[in-house]
Amino acid sequence: MNRKGKFIVIEGLEGAGKSSAIATVKQYLQRAGHEVVCTREPGGTALAESLRTLVKQVQDDEVVAPQTELLLMYAARMQLLVNVIQPALIEGKWVLGDRHDMSSRAYQGGGRQLDEAFINQLRHAVLGDLTPDLTLYLDIDPAIGLERAKARGELDRIEQEQLTFFQRTRQKYLQIAASEPNIEVIDASQSLEQVQDSILAVLRRVFE
Amino acid sequence: MNRKGKFIVIEGLEGAGKSSAIATVKQYLQRAGHEVVCTREPGGTALAESLRTLVKQVQDDEVVAPQTELLLMYAARMQLLVNVIQPALIEGKWVLGDRHDMSSRAYQGGGRQLDEAFINQLRHAVLGDLTPDLTLYLDIDPAIGLERAKARGELDRIEQEQLTFFQRTRQKYLQIAASEPNIEVIDASQSLEQVQDSILAVLRRVFE
Repeated sequence: MNRKGKFIVIEGLEGAGKSSAIATVKQYLQRAGHEVVCTREPGGTALAESLRTLVKQVQDDEVVAPQTELLLMYAARMQLLVNVIQPALIEGKWVLGDRHDMSSRAYQGGGRQLDEAFINQLRHAVLGDLTPDLTLYLDIDPAIGLERAKARGELDRIEQEQLTFFQRTRQKYLQIAASEPNIEVIDASQSLEQVQDSILAVLRRVFE
Repeated sequence: MNRKGKFIVIEGLEGAGKSSAIATVKQYLQRAGHEVVCTREPGGTALAESLRTLVKQVQDDEVVAPQTELLLMYAARMQLLVNVIQPALIEGKWVLGDRHDMSSRAYQGGGRQLDEAFINQLRHAVLGDLTPDLTLYLDIDPAIGLERAKARGELDRIEQEQLTFFQRTRQKYLQIAASEPNIEVIDASQSLEQVQDSILAVLRRVFE
């Protein structure tokens, strides 16, 4: 794929402050003159949004197998990639993603402890060589993040998991961030203003 | 898994006569004193039936990537396996499936020409060592089968494919049937009565 635009992803646990971070990055990019396409995962196309609803809702009398959850995340990702992300990047637009592949690796790999080799096979088959130009991982203690998320309202099926699930998810996030390029860890326990400053400092360093 | 019951699957193209074949097998098994659980794929649980609807419906303004289709089929299969097929087999019930894994291999592998290694990785991750005790593949020329299917009403997204798609699907069905055990090919171009006789002859040979 001949990419003219760039792909930036915001990652983090529930309550880490992804929405504020997205607003900060979007404003920065638009001021720099870029056309910005915002996406969220799972979701972003009609079919992928339907999958988002299905995977997040609590199922009555039905166990949602961890493998099912993983497959639905990658099915939604494939749809978004083909229908939205790839066309935008080819046209020179910048894509700003609310979650992407790192979420599946952290939540389903870390939280659900699904086999890493299986996840990697899926990633390769779905993503090919597409990796974000920059990922901002907003790091927060899950005990704090979940309190913030609860204050916002009802928790969905995945958000209802135990604290240990989110601790494993955070550990996997940190492990990936420490071992792969183009991922920046932002301390999301700081004040909103400090988080914004940290994000802007990264953006200036990487893109200016 | 400690399986007390047996797993029988009916496979074939649209219009091959799967419904009649299922009725024949079900009656045979019940007369032999078995408790029979009928399943269909994709489907068979609330979540899997939702996925069935999504994958079959025509999407406006959205390309359904072949990989998405494949991932949704295996997500639905995983749900059916964990929630219906495995519990039934453990309880000693016989499971009679309207389609199973061979469909994905034939339609997505043969018809859509998706990478066989990728499909095999998915199969292994989702199915483990579960294979049907008997698969009856109803073989029909797709030109004939599609005429029958059209006569029944509207065609869904997959049924709207070109004839060459179904010819590739049939070839893959036949190739799998020729190279793997526990698969019987039934000539579905015969009269309904001849097809029934062929099925009953196989069932007697295998299970009596």
